[in-house]
Amino acid sequence: MAFIADLRKRWANSGSLVCVGLDPEPGKFPAKFASDPDAIFAFCRDIADAAAEYVCCFKPQIAHFAAHGAEDALQRLIAHIHAAHPGIPVILDAKRGDIGSTAQQYAAEAFDRYGADAVTANPYLGKDSVQPFLDRADKGVVILCRTSNPGAGDLQDLLVDGKPLYQRVAEKVAREWNGNGNCALVVGATWPEQLREVREIVGDVPFLVPGVGAQGGDVEAVVKNAKTADGTGLIVSSSRAILYASNGGDYAQAAAAAAKTLRDEINRYR
Amino acid sequence: MAFIADLRKRWANSGSLVCVGLDPEPGKFPAKFASDPDAIFAFCRDIADAAAEYVCCFKPQIAHFAAHGAEDALQRLIAHIHAAHPGIPVILDAKRGDIGSTAQQYAAEAFDRYGADAVTANPYLGKDSVQPFLDRADKGVVILCRTSNPGAGDLQDLLVDGKPLYQRVAEKVAREWNGNGNCALVVGATWPEQLREVREIVGDVPFLVPGVGAQGGDVEAVVKNAKTADGTGLIVSSSRAILYASNGGDYAQAAAAAAKTLRDEINRYR
Repeated sequence: MAFIADLRKRWANSGSLVCVGLDPEPGKFPAKFASDPDAIFAFCRDIADAAAEYVCCFKPQIAHFAAHGAEDALQRLIAHIHAAHPGIPVILDAKRGDIGSTAQQYAAEAFDRYGADAVTANPYLGKDSVQPFLDRADKGVVILCRTSNPGAGDLQDLLVDGKPLYQRVAEKVAREWNGNGNCALVVGATWPEQLREVREIVGDVPFLVPGVGAQGGDVEAVVKNAKTADGTGLIVSSSRAILYASNGGDYAQAAAAAAKTLRDEINRYR
Repeated sequence: MAFIADLRKRWANSGSLVCVGLDPEPGKFPAKFASDPDAIFAFCRDIADAAAEYVCCFKPQIAHFAAHGAEDALQRLIAHIHAAHPGIPVILDAKRGDIGSTAQQYAAEAFDRYGADAVTANPYLGKDSVQPFLDRADKGVVILCRTSNPGAGDLQDLLVDGKPLYQRVAEKVAREWNGNGNCALVVGATWPEQLREVREIVGDVPFLVPGVGAQGGDVEAVVKNAKTADGTGLIVSSSRAILYASNGGDYAQAAAAAAKTLRDEINRYR
């Protein structure tokens, strides 16, 4: 089934808008992984298995695998999530963007090699650079709009005819790029006002919202400003605050508890 | 030595502004590679060895390796170029861009894992997303400004206070991001007028210029509009027109001849 439909179904079935970001940092792993040559896979698998019931999506971040030459671990992790937790979409966080012929290679990387259900993409190169992703109608394309980092405004807030660039991106995605209905947008939790503005522009296009947890975004403001009329519309992503909730023997249970706590906090405001 | 200094030295020693883009597409390889399990490495190595004397840089494009699970081939290819052709910098074309903590992982991927001398980066997330690359003062950071693809203008031409966004990016890089003197800019050959405008903004910051060859950029216009006062300043990149100049047994010689022809054409206008 298509990513957006799978996502809506999972929102309904799980009652959760939480996405766990799988950003492995071996230096932060519990001691038991110190001598495990497959630590990156094993750690992420344990977190995913423990937290699955509390999430609507998982989001592995590819740089955290690539920096360690752990592409094989990433591939097995996504396959494991699909096999062990059917119905939970996997968003590959790769923020790819290149000319069309190269974007086709990146689409093959994300969807064919890794089997991801959706991928994040950067809009700076324009529509034809995103087209090979958009053309995969069964897959999701999560386009950067207003990111969660401190320097997000350097370009994204520049005013184009009186409106910030990120709103122009939101307009383009909603009106020109979403012909297959498979787009979503990245809008950071650290900017609640911008979340509201983008929601007004794009209707019920799903938002991937990073920036709660370690980056300090306010859950109440996020949910109230950015939910859709049916109380969904959000993929609220937390990585470090869940993955590294404990570095003791209870790391998996602690991660699950952190995911559950975030789910419940979000649900108070839906 | 630092990337920009190495580049200037190589420009002087080789008399060439040509960069060969290493974008392997196994379907276009000569027949002899059909049963070679290491075809991606072997083909790129042959091209690099044949064309080396005519180039200032090599630029492997990572998606063309990642789509085939050929990270190991990419790693060995860069090591081979460094060993067999010392003094020729390698630019890893990856167009990465993410929040700071993730950008550190991407910097580790490009510089530590692959040993690249420079990497291409996307500016949409702002300065802090590029900072982990900028901080590697011995490495080059080649930032997307005005790309060569048809949709480049979708965002890059939007007017910010009367100036297109790509010129704002050029200003930011020249004035705020280039403290370590290790920046370069991507400006496509398909937009000669924009090349001239960006050159006026950034002084002698090197340009990586894709878009000659298969994409149709005009060499004379590129060189006349974008060279620096000393007749350098350009890394003119061609991929498909060189790599696939012949798919017969003479593929490597044909690639070398195409690189030499491009070098000579460029040099007529320097």
